[in-house]
Amino acid sequence: MKLTRRDFSRLGAMAAVAGALPPGVQARNAREGRKLRWCIVGLGRISMGQFMPGVKLSKTGALTALVSGHREKAQRQAALYGVRPSSIYSYENFDEIRRNPDIDAVYIALPNSMHAEYTIRAARAGKHVLCEKPMATSLADCRRMIAACREAHVKLMIAYRCQYHPSHLKAIELIRTGAVGRVQAIESAFGFDIRPGEWRLNRKMAGGGPLVDVGIYCLNAARYLTGESPRDLEGYASVIDHDGRFTEVEENDGWTMRFPSGIVASCNTSYGAQMNGFFRVHGSKGWISMDGFNYSGMHLTAELASGETLDIPDPVRAPGQFTAEADYFAGCVWNDREPKTDGEEGLRDMTAIAQIYESAGLRLGV
Amino acid sequence: MKLTRRDFSRLGAMAAVAGALPPGVQARNAREGRKLRWCIVGLGRISMGQFMPGVKLSKTGALTALVSGHREKAQRQAALYGVRPSSIYSYENFDEIRRNPDIDAVYIALPNSMHAEYTIRAARAGKHVLCEKPMATSLADCRRMIAACREAHVKLMIAYRCQYHPSHLKAIELIRTGAVGRVQAIESAFGFDIRPGEWRLNRKMAGGGPLVDVGIYCLNAARYLTGESPRDLEGYASVIDHDGRFTEVEENDGWTMRFPSGIVASCNTSYGAQMNGFFRVHGSKGWISMDGFNYSGMHLTAELASGETLDIPDPVRAPGQFTAEADYFAGCVWNDREPKTDGEEGLRDMTAIAQIYESAGLRLGV
Repeated sequence: MKLTRRDFSRLGAMAAVAGALPPGVQARNAREGRKLRWCIVGLGRISMGQFMPGVKLSKTGALTALVSGHREKAQRQAALYGVRPSSIYSYENFDEIRRNPDIDAVYIALPNSMHAEYTIRAARAGKHVLCEKPMATSLADCRRMIAACREAHVKLMIAYRCQYHPSHLKAIELIRTGAVGRVQAIESAFGFDIRPGEWRLNRKMAGGGPLVDVGIYCLNAARYLTGESPRDLEGYASVIDHDGRFTEVEENDGWTMRFPSGIVASCNTSYGAQMNGFFRVHGSKGWISMDGFNYSGMHLTAELASGETLDIPDPVRAPGQFTAEADYFAGCVWNDREPKTDGEEGLRDMTAIAQIYESAGLRLGV
Repeated sequence: MKLTRRDFSRLGAMAAVAGALPPGVQARNAREGRKLRWCIVGLGRISMGQFMPGVKLSKTGALTALVSGHREKAQRQAALYGVRPSSIYSYENFDEIRRNPDIDAVYIALPNSMHAEYTIRAARAGKHVLCEKPMATSLADCRRMIAACREAHVKLMIAYRCQYHPSHLKAIELIRTGAVGRVQAIESAFGFDIRPGEWRLNRKMAGGGPLVDVGIYCLNAARYLTGESPRDLEGYASVIDHDGRFTEVEENDGWTMRFPSGIVASCNTSYGAQMNGFFRVHGSKGWISMDGFNYSGMHLTAELASGETLDIPDPVRAPGQFTAEADYFAGCVWNDREPKTDGEEGLRDMTAIAQIYESAGLRLGV
């Protein structure tokens, strides 16, 4: 079936249900005009292009502070979003956010190697933390982040936006309700042709190549689709393009996994090819396919055991994925509920990535 | 671009070029009404449903003999194809084909474990051999088949039909000419939900599960698309459905490979899910996708470095893939040319399969 606009709305409603805000709390906060007040840490493409516009569209969030190494850029963004100049921080005076009562939470969108430090500093400043994936560049850092947030009694969520997208939630629901029988196998891939000079190519800043950056979507999808963590993992890495880009991190990774139930999943990722993200789930009685892991354009198709076919264009327009993420996090904070993509969830992916790298003769981090 | 009927004809012509019959030889044989005379060994679905109708459509082939354990079935097929009753053989008197001058070649479509014996007996009877994949159920058997055909000075070809299909040849050509840049990664999968009781579920007859039967398409595709053999292979196998079907062979395999150039390929196969065959090739400047490894319906799409997109429905109608295969083999025989999918090609796949099984804690054969 082709979904109508009405169906889209239902999917939207599903997404809201999947968020953490019980209707009562949502209504009460809306009535009180209460907002989760965000401090954005790092003004890069994802912050300025997605998360900040996403929060602006959100009913639960407000942008109240910015952290950047570029004062002028921060001032321009502050003006755009009505952030007070006194709430613009640099990385040097970051810890002063502790004394800013207009900040409830930070959104960390820094190079991977800085996630741990700024998560821990934010926690010590008493702020909740939404941190971009990959969680960190070492398992030790992941554990330190979890411990710091626990000690400070602040929430820690890793920004796995697909887990808050209605089409991915629909895929999970189809699997859990047996709509495609028992899952046997999954394929997934995601990659892009990286530009020279990106910090992602610097091992110290990135901690690894495409696997930590985009391959992590395939890994995470295999985990939320199966509801399991892989028991066995083996992978290979390679560099094909000796054009100066891949002197520190790998260009390609291919890996295969077996889950405790017996489900096998085989994945690829690349910094040397424009790989439209996808997954395919093969069940004993049907299949589910998702095309696209991007900010928009995720396309879900399926053939179910019932004989029904699904063809669901993306019901979410960019930056709606980030609005959903911010809303969900606000609900976790207000209801004192652990986010489903908490630090442990981030650590599980990083543990798997470390194992894949090890099997490929590489390592996570420096 | 959507291809027109005229484009289809061009693709057909490409396939003919890719076949082994130089126009001169083709014309001479056609003039002389010369045919390669086939003896069909094993009257199962692929013989009766595909290969025999395929030969009937072919200009190069004629069906002149049958081998079957079921005399009545053989008599019905003989009547259908005008085969003389004296050219119907059983497995017991198979060696008498040696004295039948109306047989040039045999097509072996028996359970996998019988490929070696009947290839060797056919070779000793002085007949050329086209043997279905997988070549055999052990590497030793593959080597014995190659040696027997070499000693008898007969051709041995493994029936990798995709390598004679114009859309697969087009994909190979696109890669070789750099139309998608340098290949970085490949995904492929193929599987089906097997019925209980099939000989394919019997380890002694099959030599393995879905990997030897349908996963071999993914492996072979990764090899002909890259033009390389994998240097590294790792895989996992599993049984999820404990319904009595998988007591001897595995239900699922997932595996990943690295080729000498650095290309990574990750694949799945299953006997527990209807997995429409596919491959996706990710190049540095474009991609190629094939949907379907079946007897018909192979659909090629691509986005090239030039910006051009391709959308090529299957130009071949069943049983045309088998006609192409039979025509190609006739050309090899008449021109004394080694088939590109010769015994060594079959052995390369079986070697890789044995390695995947070993890494998965299984083994090829009994």
